Amino acid sequence: MITLTSDFGSPYPAAMKGVIASRTDARLVDVSHELPRQDVGSAAFWLCETLPYFPPAVHLVVVDPGVGTERAALVVRAGDHVLVGPDNGVLDPVSRRLGDDGPIERYRIDEGNPESSTFHGRDVFAPAAATVHDRSLEALGGTDALTATAEYVSMELPEPTIDGAVADGSVLAVDDFGNCITNVPGSFVADADAVVVDTRRVPVVEAFDAVDPGVALAAVGSHGNLELDVNRGRGDETFGLETGDSVRIRRS
Amino acid sequence: MITLTSDFGSPYPAAMKGVIASRTDARLVDVSHELPRQDVGSAAFWLCETLPYFPPAVHLVVVDPGVGTERAALVVRAGDHVLVGPDNGVLDPVSRRLGDDGPIERYRIDEGNPESSTFHGRDVFAPAAATVHDRSLEALGGTDALTATAEYVSMELPEPTIDGAVADGSVLAVDDFGNCITNVPGSFVADADAVVVDTRRVPVVEAFDAVDPGVALAAVGSHGNLELDVNRGRGDETFGLETGDSVRIRRS
Amino acid sequence: MITLTSDFGSPYPAAMKGVIASRTDARLVDVSHELPRQDVGSAAFWLCETLPYFPPAVHLVVVDPGVGTERAALVVRAGDHVLVGPDNGVLDPVSRRLGDDGPIERYRIDEGNPESSTFHGRDVFAPAAATVHDRSLEALGGTDALTATAEYVSMELPEPTIDGAVADGSVLAVDDFGNCITNVPGSFVADADAVVVDTRRVPVVEAFDAVDPGVALAAVGSHGNLELDVNRGRGDETFGLETGDSVRIRRS
Repeated sequence: MITLTSDFGSPYPAAMKGVIASRTDARLVDVSHELPRQDVGSAAFWLCETLPYFPPAVHLVVVDPGVGTERAALVVRAGDHVLVGPDNGVLDPVSRRLGDDGPIERYRIDEGNPESSTFHGRDVFAPAAATVHDRSLEALGGTDALTATAEYVSMELPEPTIDGAVADGSVLAVDDFGNCITNVPGSFVADADAVVVDTRRVPVVEAFDAVDPGVALAAVGSHGNLELDVNRGRGDETFGLETGDSVRIRRS
Repeated sequence: MITLTSDFGSPYPAAMKGVIASRTDARLVDVSHELPRQDVGSAAFWLCETLPYFPPAVHLVVVDPGVGTERAALVVRAGDHVLVGPDNGVLDPVSRRLGDDGPIERYRIDEGNPESSTFHGRDVFAPAAATVHDRSLEALGGTDALTATAEYVSMELPEPTIDGAVADGSVLAVDDFGNCITNVPGSFVADADAVVVDTRRVPVVEAFDAVDPGVALAAVGSHGNLELDVNRGRGDETFGLETGDSVRIRRS
Repeated sequence: MITLTSDFGSPYPAAMKGVIASRTDARLVDVSHELPRQDVGSAAFWLCETLPYFPPAVHLVVVDPGVGTERAALVVRAGDHVLVGPDNGVLDPVSRRLGDDGPIERYRIDEGNPESSTFHGRDVFAPAAATVHDRSLEALGGTDALTATAEYVSMELPEPTIDGAVADGSVLAVDDFGNCITNVPGSFVADADAVVVDTRRVPVVEAFDAVDPGVALAAVGSHGNLELDVNRGRGDETFGLETGDSVRIRRS
């Protein structure tokens, strides 16, 4: 199985699928092609929320604002999974998650002379994913295709600062419902009935429908983090938040 | 085959696909993940327009504004198809369609203690769909996983009132072209050359291109219902209609 | 393998997938269902950018503003590929590309009496694609299903006029990043450091990140054509261009 993740929208992912299908019969599963454009941090978050649910697979990831520059192209082995994508940090948090404290191996892809300088998803990463899928990394490592490397761009998702009843966090992502997913862990609101977000006091609930439609709320989302939402509405608009914004949350 | 339908947008459906692919090799086919958010009625309509074209399959459906509340989780057997989703009515109209006047069996899923209270698509429904796909319902019924139930939330798509040349109907859905799909049956305009929609008189045509670009029209859509459209434009904007709106249509 | 391309958005493509899956076990791969609505020229361009990367396949294409009128329905054999779609020109440029100077065969589909006059994707083209996939064209040609034809709607993607250092071109498509893809070949800017687009002078770069975020640029895109972009921004907004617009580009 090869999964595909990008910020390409449509129809560029089809060229990657064609390239892969021309090289291997591997099953293809789309993770997303609608990740926020050129936003490496959001992409790293969403990969952590999706790839760990998959069985062992090759995961092709192309969120690549530096395409055509000197940034390297990587194959990463983490646990039973293999990741293929640009060396800009996007693969790093999910590699640790998939690696589960085991060793993580990283290889630089010999990019050769790609047809384009702007679409390495099609010309570099998709062919590499197909090759890695059908042959073992060991076989590739003995060739010129992959070179083991200890150098790579690391990335940490931002951590909140928690001081007693006050958490200074940030918005990791806004989902398509408008829910603002913060980096504040759900444990911060265990036993709390309400929180004050900046100056707005909202209840902490287990289910969106615990409040009336249109009412703002905080909840522990499916990722285990505190989310700021509106039942059947958009939390980003009500709270005035977008990805990357700082947010102060006080238990109340 | 397992089909997937939700209002999740992207990338949450990928977590469901990962969960399923970890449990079964079933083929996965996306129906839609762009259904109008939290709109159980629209979802019920679109399921009727899509699922009956599929061969026998397990259909995973997650439009679930009540997630985390006491609403039940259902497996429904209708004809050669099986539906899995929340007990909020969304499965009901298409169950009757797929069941084709035969018996419909309904089972409550033992939800256990899901990892999250906000993403039962991933934690309850996707695992149930995978299990139902690979084992027979009979086998499951003998376990604690499923309990036959006669109680469930029913739903009827709204019916129009037709009195001679006047139909009082409603808009069941607006599609991505902006076409307003009403619940008025196409037979209402058999032999009619034009209709008056509220106060606007538009021709009844067989093909959008029967009128000039930008011209409003009425046509019998692919679902057999009367649609209000604009050739190469958006009917919802021209007619000022959205899903759920009432509309009076008079043959003219 | 059957690929699917349309301007349908969601969820109409699911009905086509159901129809196909009811008739054949062929693998289904989505190319795009988000092509610009009713825009046959843009669709023809995007097909040229995606289908040639696929292995031999049946390609179902439904961008069909004339559905329900007298326009014909075609099966086209080009090289090892088969295309199925409306006879409105959308299949023509990619047929020549896939045919690779070899002969191209065209057949009219006997449309019979389709269930709807507005959704031939579901009622005519999807069944034809399934049938063509599972049987040889020769077998079909001997039946009433397909009739060889020499008549069809041809289409040429617009060509630029180049006079020395000045190219009068047009915008073939705007992609989801906002990049304006012109029909001016990349060779026009070989050795050029900058171009003047209408009155705006922008650098010609190899990689978007060669300029600061927010800065306008010209680059040779993955299709080999000159593109007008903004690093981490939207070229269409900055240059004030949309699909079909004329654009004068001068080497500088």
